[in-house]
Amino acid sequence: MNANTRAPIDFFFDFSSPYGYFASCRVDAIGQEHRREVIWRPYLMGAAMKFTGSTPLVERKMIGDYARHDLARTARRYGLAYNPPPPPFPLPSIAPCRAFYWLSDRDPLQARDFAKRTYAALFIDGRNISEVDVVVELAVSAGANADETRAALGDQAVKDRLRQETDAAIERGVFGSPFFIVDGEPFWGNDRLDELDTWLKTGGW
Amino acid sequence: MNANTRAPIDFFFDFSSPYGYFASCRVDAIGQEHRREVIWRPYLMGAAMKFTGSTPLVERKMIGDYARHDLARTARRYGLAYNPPPPPFPLPSIAPCRAFYWLSDRDPLQARDFAKRTYAALFIDGRNISEVDVVVELAVSAGANADETRAALGDQAVKDRLRQETDAAIERGVFGSPFFIVDGEPFWGNDRLDELDTWLKTGGW
Repeated sequence: MNANTRAPIDFFFDFSSPYGYFASCRVDAIGQEHRREVIWRPYLMGAAMKFTGSTPLVERKMIGDYARHDLARTARRYGLAYNPPPPPFPLPSIAPCRAFYWLSDRDPLQARDFAKRTYAALFIDGRNISEVDVVVELAVSAGANADETRAALGDQAVKDRLRQETDAAIERGVFGSPFFIVDGEPFWGNDRLDELDTWLKTGGW
Repeated sequence: MNANTRAPIDFFFDFSSPYGYFASCRVDAIGQEHRREVIWRPYLMGAAMKFTGSTPLVERKMIGDYARHDLARTARRYGLAYNPPPPPFPLPSIAPCRAFYWLSDRDPLQARDFAKRTYAALFIDGRNISEVDVVVELAVSAGANADETRAALGDQAVKDRLRQETDAAIERGVFGSPFFIVDGEPFWGNDRLDELDTWLKTGGW
């Protein structure tokens, strides 16, 4: 049996989400363990939050303090490098999302490499990943051409692609980051990645 | 070494919270395993939500659908009886909270028994636990006197007691249900009860 015979794990995330970053560091190993392909699907969580009426955790009174504590604790638990990003945060993630899908249509592995570099740039190096120049630099470091990347970011087809991906995510009931769907089963939150793992191990309940 | 030599686990919950109910079924065993006393602390989560600007999960678009799915799945995972409560839900939990603290000052074990019966009444039997008659019936089934319970629910000292407990919870940074604090470390959510367990097992990280 190979990976192609089983449904993939859809991994939805926003580039500005620290819990999405943590999940991104672990999800591929979990997929591999269960011989499931993992499809990385960045989207604009802000669009979903308009539906759900949510606001970013770190901006909420009391919850923000807890989240900052929990983020540092979660990073320590899984041994992940993490530095709380400097303001402005959260950031709009439109530019890296567009770059991701443009890369993805040409080379999915390069797109994934770009995604990992983007998360590291924000959550380790404190870079402003909403800036076109930063996104171009990251795409180049993943092997893309600078001018082509810059052109792609302004390309209407690429813009439309991101809008479609975001609409499709919301259509499937996705509203958070990270958010996973496997075999039709939704899991919301980095703290549910272990549950997803247990679900696949046991066949569900 | 006995339970008294270690700091207790503070277990905060709202009687109208299904995830609080799930946690209530498991938290005592986890306390026992680590020889930690578990102090049950019902409070009015609505008061905290005014600070955080949150609204009940089940009332939120998209998130509500996910929550309903996840609640049934969580109940199955832990083998807990659970029936989604009929409308109106969520309910105000003032009356059972007052009864709890009145009972607690006389007999903490009776109060805990009452709390378990109250959760079962709502999340298994679909009773309206915001009604005084239902609360009196549940207190009586836990061993209290009906007239005394009824009088206590209208007693200003009991009302003040609940207000103080709720204020104190918010003061300590509590905003959700369930919410745990042990050794100064906060854990939010039923899905973090396993993490609390691991924290105590390993000594933290």
